[in-house]
Amino acid sequence: MTSSDRIYTAALVIIGDEILSGRTQDANLAYLAKWLNVQGIRLSHARVVPDVEEDIIDAVNACRQRYDYVFTTGGIGPTHDDITIDAIARAFGVPVVIHPEAEEMLRAYYGGGLTDARLRMARVPEGAELIPNELSAAPGIRIGNVYILAGVPGVTHAMLRALEGKLKGGLPVLSRTVGAKVGESTVADLLRNTEAAYPGVQVGSYPFWREGEPNANFVIRSTDAKAMNAAAEMIFSALARMGLDPVDGEI
Amino acid sequence: MTSSDRIYTAALVIIGDEILSGRTQDANLAYLAKWLNVQGIRLSHARVVPDVEEDIIDAVNACRQRYDYVFTTGGIGPTHDDITIDAIARAFGVPVVIHPEAEEMLRAYYGGGLTDARLRMARVPEGAELIPNELSAAPGIRIGNVYILAGVPGVTHAMLRALEGKLKGGLPVLSRTVGAKVGESTVADLLRNTEAAYPGVQVGSYPFWREGEPNANFVIRSTDAKAMNAAAEMIFSALARMGLDPVDGEI
Repeated sequence: MTSSDRIYTAALVIIGDEILSGRTQDANLAYLAKWLNVQGIRLSHARVVPDVEEDIIDAVNACRQRYDYVFTTGGIGPTHDDITIDAIARAFGVPVVIHPEAEEMLRAYYGGGLTDARLRMARVPEGAELIPNELSAAPGIRIGNVYILAGVPGVTHAMLRALEGKLKGGLPVLSRTVGAKVGESTVADLLRNTEAAYPGVQVGSYPFWREGEPNANFVIRSTDAKAMNAAAEMIFSALARMGLDPVDGEI
Repeated sequence: MTSSDRIYTAALVIIGDEILSGRTQDANLAYLAKWLNVQGIRLSHARVVPDVEEDIIDAVNACRQRYDYVFTTGGIGPTHDDITIDAIARAFGVPVVIHPEAEEMLRAYYGGGLTDARLRMARVPEGAELIPNELSAAPGIRIGNVYILAGVPGVTHAMLRALEGKLKGGLPVLSRTVGAKVGESTVADLLRNTEAAYPGVQVGSYPFWREGEPNANFVIRSTDAKAMNAAAEMIFSALARMGLDPVDGEI
């Protein structure tokens, strides 16, 4: 296995009562997943935890041992329910300190209005680096392999843009989709045989109903374009032989 | 603490490569959270894991020890990537068996077309009960405190409807929202003081930008309606005194 064959993995810890109560629909997981794939990193695990320090500590510590990268979203604002920094400092066993550059950035933004509440956004676990970004005066924060990001999607995206090209990754996962008007159970053997024929290729089956009829998209994933295309061709031509009129793409 | 004061908790394990790749946006978490709240159960934790048996086993075993209820979504269809049943059987240390009633339901639906692939949907961990539902010939499954549901939202909802009123719960969490055109950092002290004044009340702050101006919704949550209303009133009247023209509800 050459170094470029190594699979780099990441976990996401989503922090916030508002996600677990159903008030807010998370939009960061899918975005981060696609962004990571471009960097050659695979999102392999995610957790959603409430605004409870012990729960954040447990999740971050479990994930940072097991995955190459950990991203957290949420809980880094100025209010009392923003406890991510304190929890992650405890997870690393370091104190919380004011980061001088972060304080400077906030002072430049708020001027004389830099209240104690706003100064909270300059607090970091000791030894952390900032992730400055063009959208927010309050930066993201990196400590070890943990990247602490905002929860508001626009700001999350800006922080990811600031990280673009800076993370070590492997080969991105390529994917191709074949769709057909067919119930997935009809073609279960074909899918299983295709996956078996092409090691390193994953075949996912995603059924849905449209106008009372069963449909399915079959997603073929691999880091190897040749193997992916051969597997997709095997599924496409078998579906065509069955008279199912498959689509090269999503149906 | 009377028995109705006890907080019943639940965890959700979302199973599927398609969620972690960003291909599919999860829609079950927010729905389940609200549904559980009506049953007096609090969604306290969630995980997203890939179609990998060890990952499913780890997540289910960690969650079923710690929470009153565990729900899983995804991976119970007829194709090779549907491995939830096998994983959960291993998590419980029991074999996988064909459930006779499930086989009967599938036979009634598919008739002579009940292939081996389709018969996979009658497989359950030994000792499990079915969760029949009006939408799908393939039932959900309960074993211990683990409820195994479909991943396709329409079917997930049908399985939850079949469980309505059957789970033991406590008091539902009530919530009220106060909104204002204000940056949350301006009122951070007010929010912290309100939460401190009303034990058992949580105050969440959810900021957003609209037309270049900061806005925020403050969500006051409690199982006690009186305390919730008093806390909401404290925030509303303080915002009004500041001339911020607050809204009794989402802004």
